[in-house]
Amino acid sequence: MANSRFEYVKAFEQTDNLLPNTWVVVRIDGRGFTNKYNFEKPNDRRALDLMNAAAKAVVTDLPDITIGYGVSDEYSFVFHKTCTLFERRASKLVSTIVSTFTAYYVHLWSTYFPQTPLSTPLPSFDGRAVCYPSVQNLRDYMSWRQVDCHINNLYNTTFWSLIQLGGMSATEAEKFLAGTLSADKNEIMFSKFHLNYNNEPEIFKKGSVVFRDYELVEPGTHNVAEAADDLAEPVKQSKTQEEGDRKRRAKARVMVDHLDIIKDDFWDRRPWLLSNKPGKVPKQT
Amino acid sequence: MANSRFEYVKAFEQTDNLLPNTWVVVRIDGRGFTNKYNFEKPNDRRALDLMNAAAKAVVTDLPDITIGYGVSDEYSFVFHKTCTLFERRASKLVSTIVSTFTAYYVHLWSTYFPQTPLSTPLPSFDGRAVCYPSVQNLRDYMSWRQVDCHINNLYNTTFWSLIQLGGMSATEAEKFLAGTLSADKNEIMFSKFHLNYNNEPEIFKKGSVVFRDYELVEPGTHNVAEAADDLAEPVKQSKTQEEGDRKRRAKARVMVDHLDIIKDDFWDRRPWLLSNKPGKVPKQT
Amino acid sequence: MANSRFEYVKAFEQTDNLLPNTWVVVRIDGRGFTNKYNFEKPNDRRALDLMNAAAKAVVTDLPDITIGYGVSDEYSFVFHKTCTLFERRASKLVSTIVSTFTAYYVHLWSTYFPQTPLSTPLPSFDGRAVCYPSVQNLRDYMSWRQVDCHINNLYNTTFWSLIQLGGMSATEAEKFLAGTLSADKNEIMFSKFHLNYNNEPEIFKKGSVVFRDYELVEPGTHNVAEAADDLAEPVKQSKTQEEGDRKRRAKARVMVDHLDIIKDDFWDRRPWLLSNKPGKVPKQT
Amino acid sequence: MANSRFEYVKAFEQTDNLLPNTWVVVRIDGRGFTNKYNFEKPNDRRALDLMNAAAKAVVTDLPDITIGYGVSDEYSFVFHKTCTLFERRASKLVSTIVSTFTAYYVHLWSTYFPQTPLSTPLPSFDGRAVCYPSVQNLRDYMSWRQVDCHINNLYNTTFWSLIQLGGMSATEAEKFLAGTLSADKNEIMFSKFHLNYNNEPEIFKKGSVVFRDYELVEPGTHNVAEAADDLAEPVKQSKTQEEGDRKRRAKARVMVDHLDIIKDDFWDRRPWLLSNKPGKVPKQT
Repeated sequence: MANSRFEYVKAFEQTDNLLPNTWVVVRIDGRGFTNKYNFEKPNDRRALDLMNAAAKAVVTDLPDITIGYGVSDEYSFVFHKTCTLFERRASKLVSTIVSTFTAYYVHLWSTYFPQTPLSTPLPSFDGRAVCYPSVQNLRDYMSWRQVDCHINNLYNTTFWSLIQLGGMSATEAEKFLAGTLSADKNEIMFSKFHLNYNNEPEIFKKGSVVFRDYELVEPGTHNVAEAADDLAEPVKQSKTQEEGDRKRRAKARVMVDHLDIIKDDFWDRRPWLLSNKPGKVPKQT
Repeated sequence: MANSRFEYVKAFEQTDNLLPNTWVVVRIDGRGFTNKYNFEKPNDRRALDLMNAAAKAVVTDLPDITIGYGVSDEYSFVFHKTCTLFERRASKLVSTIVSTFTAYYVHLWSTYFPQTPLSTPLPSFDGRAVCYPSVQNLRDYMSWRQVDCHINNLYNTTFWSLIQLGGMSATEAEKFLAGTLSADKNEIMFSKFHLNYNNEPEIFKKGSVVFRDYELVEPGTHNVAEAADDLAEPVKQSKTQEEGDRKRRAKARVMVDHLDIIKDDFWDRRPWLLSNKPGKVPKQT
Repeated sequence: MANSRFEYVKAFEQTDNLLPNTWVVVRIDGRGFTNKYNFEKPNDRRALDLMNAAAKAVVTDLPDITIGYGVSDEYSFVFHKTCTLFERRASKLVSTIVSTFTAYYVHLWSTYFPQTPLSTPLPSFDGRAVCYPSVQNLRDYMSWRQVDCHINNLYNTTFWSLIQLGGMSATEAEKFLAGTLSADKNEIMFSKFHLNYNNEPEIFKKGSVVFRDYELVEPGTHNVAEAADDLAEPVKQSKTQEEGDRKRRAKARVMVDHLDIIKDDFWDRRPWLLSNKPGKVPKQT
Repeated sequence: MANSRFEYVKAFEQTDNLLPNTWVVVRIDGRGFTNKYNFEKPNDRRALDLMNAAAKAVVTDLPDITIGYGVSDEYSFVFHKTCTLFERRASKLVSTIVSTFTAYYVHLWSTYFPQTPLSTPLPSFDGRAVCYPSVQNLRDYMSWRQVDCHINNLYNTTFWSLIQLGGMSATEAEKFLAGTLSADKNEIMFSKFHLNYNNEPEIFKKGSVVFRDYELVEPGTHNVAEAADDLAEPVKQSKTQEEGDRKRRAKARVMVDHLDIIKDDFWDRRPWLLSNKPGKVPKQT
């Protein structure tokens, strides 16, 4: 029985290789998470910790990812612009990240929600890949997500304080907040409930950033962004260099933190995020 | 703090809507499953049952899928050519299926492998979408996968019998089989080990097909393939019809079976697979 | 001086092969033709004849085109769904048609406008490719263009009669026609100017269709549409058959006509348009 | 007669907008020009002048093009990375350039080949668009084409001297040159025919570059490449600025020259090519 008669169908597969020399961001989103799992409002610390644990596992399993950023039920993962994983095929990159993330999310669920067994339909995520040509584009993307985190969290924190502490209905709270600015929301929380938004946990206000941790560098000693933009083609390294990089990456701790990723300082002190050259592994403490 | 300064980055997202009026096949593949989980050779019934359980859950969760076909660590899912789910965006369709499948695979692992706790890196899958314009193309795709199943399974069954029953090394078995035809392999198994390949379980020889089960139809009473090819644009149904279809689909049992999907008979007796019109729900027994 | 240092840039070229087994329509449009060349209103016969002459040359130069349809300053060309010209790369197909059409349009200009030498900027066209999976989709595309031709021509003919015969300004004519139906426009022309729209030239009312001319066939003797839809993969012909087809195509006259392409009759009598099998070359008269 | 029944076919058109913030190169190639038009060998000055005249017209008609480079029967045109012409749709950009180029090529043919009337099939071109994320990528692309020009021209000049001056057949000349390096070819021409390749016309050795001419700038006073790479999003200019730019561009002479575009000097002295800010229009002499 020859297979050839049907094999012509392979030719229908169309290529989706992403443009070389661009930063690839894969963003995943929880499918219908809002209101689905009875998460605490406005933020459920266990749910965020679970997202972060899954993200940490993704970054660990896929060393080509240089940084991740998460907020609520979404996470963005960044492949360095020189990355050639899966020949940069969009569907392979997206599906691998989505699948790996989902696997850990489901597997670790019981660790974070020991009282709440998973029920069907199980949690799932969708994803997409976007290319950014320059460091500035990439940083603006990251900033966009962190600003979004801030805006949503400020709104949600105020909204739920009106409901939980002020006894309003959702509709009343929504009307009450219509047209308010950031300062108004801060003022409402403070004057009504003596809540100081600044004292909210950083994880709620800033979201979570995941990356390999090396020794911080003095800002101003490198111009990594420019060097990254100057890179024109895939870096050719010797096998020895590659092996060395691989080992240093494997030794580095993948950490989750809640930092300002909009300002230069975060990037200046962590040149490896843009250069893709592993830094100095800090002594384990 | 206005968000607009960074929002321009949204414009970098490129569309990937699949061509209308084509059958969409999403195929997923286990990432590095061979040799990873100590599955039994040549086939591990528990692993196949787990794949099928996950596939059944995917078809149940996503009623837009009309049929799935699985072999080894791969599964193909078919969206009807009139499907407009997620505006037919490739990345949404692929990532949703991959994520849902992974979620169930990980969640149900302990049911099928109670003695083998999952270890990291967790199992994951990648995926891709391919469009097929005609019923014949779609059926040729399905046939291609089932022929592949047959060829691989015949080879693997012979190969492992030489090792497990004949005491050969992998290299010896490989050499021994080089250049053999199907008939030779059947003959080898029979003469050496009194194995009759025909008696192997259908799930190994034919793979697994997943679909909603309705009452079978007499072949020849419909020409569904032609009707499907004649369909030119998305079907417009009344809300009542849609609701009716939805209910009948929800009532139908999603079943897993191991049938010949190459011959006409399978398709002729199940017109709903190509017509996308739910059949008659059989009386539950 | 080795070239290799720069050759990496070739890898940035992305593929754009169109889905196999779909009808490829390349539509080109005049860039800014309205009001540019002082064409007569509502229709300039010389301009249409020039479009048709260029289209005829395109169909002659590119035997892979089975049919073309033109109206005003646009033309659509259809490649058969089995066509593999340029590996179905969209940019090659579109640019070749646009360039060939432009070449003839400019070259033949002086034949049709002997009194009006071309001036810069020279006339140019843009183009795009669209895939249609089924015969019905393709025919609906063609019907869409011909209905558009009818609607626009009826409007324009009425509009310009109000101006040229009725002495209205453009603004007055526009207001006068706002909200009128087809029957109203026919009535306006007849009652005001004794014009019977039915007597307008077919080329204005129906547009122009270009194709290779073979002997007509009795309708009902073929079911070509169905046979075309049933075709699943590129046809494999013997060299002799191919050569025979090539010769018959070369012998066939490429003709321009103004026929109803919405009704079945046009297609039923010219099975070669959908089958891609050259018909019987009529005896030259 | 309602149009709506067929209008669904519009939805089959798929988008092809090119990634923002990348340099767009549209390269066009003569279709089957080799040996077609009895051009003089190894270079036909009239044919090159005609190519350049057409390219100059394209750059004049489409002010969004910042630079063009041509060799033999191919031409590359560059859109600045901030360009938003036609919403960056690939098919519109490619087809417009191909069509405009073809129009002038055919129209001007008789000026450059007064003795050789055009015959069918008329000359035509195909084209494609490629995106380059960084200035270095773009310059490497341009260098790639110019190195190609050099390599081909050195070979062709030697090859044809062996035939035209040395009396060899094409096959003999090909064999004779197999495996020779650049230095060998120079030596062959000099020792056999007293030809000094360095004395060949610049247009043959370097190809042709087309751009808007402004006053040259002292190298080192700008870092335009870096500034261009730093640009992240479409520049927002006031209407007044835009109008000013438009006027300065219109005033600038579009010139054709034969310069080294591989070295920095060319780009350093013409910052407007990368910045897209028109320079100072030189006093007309």
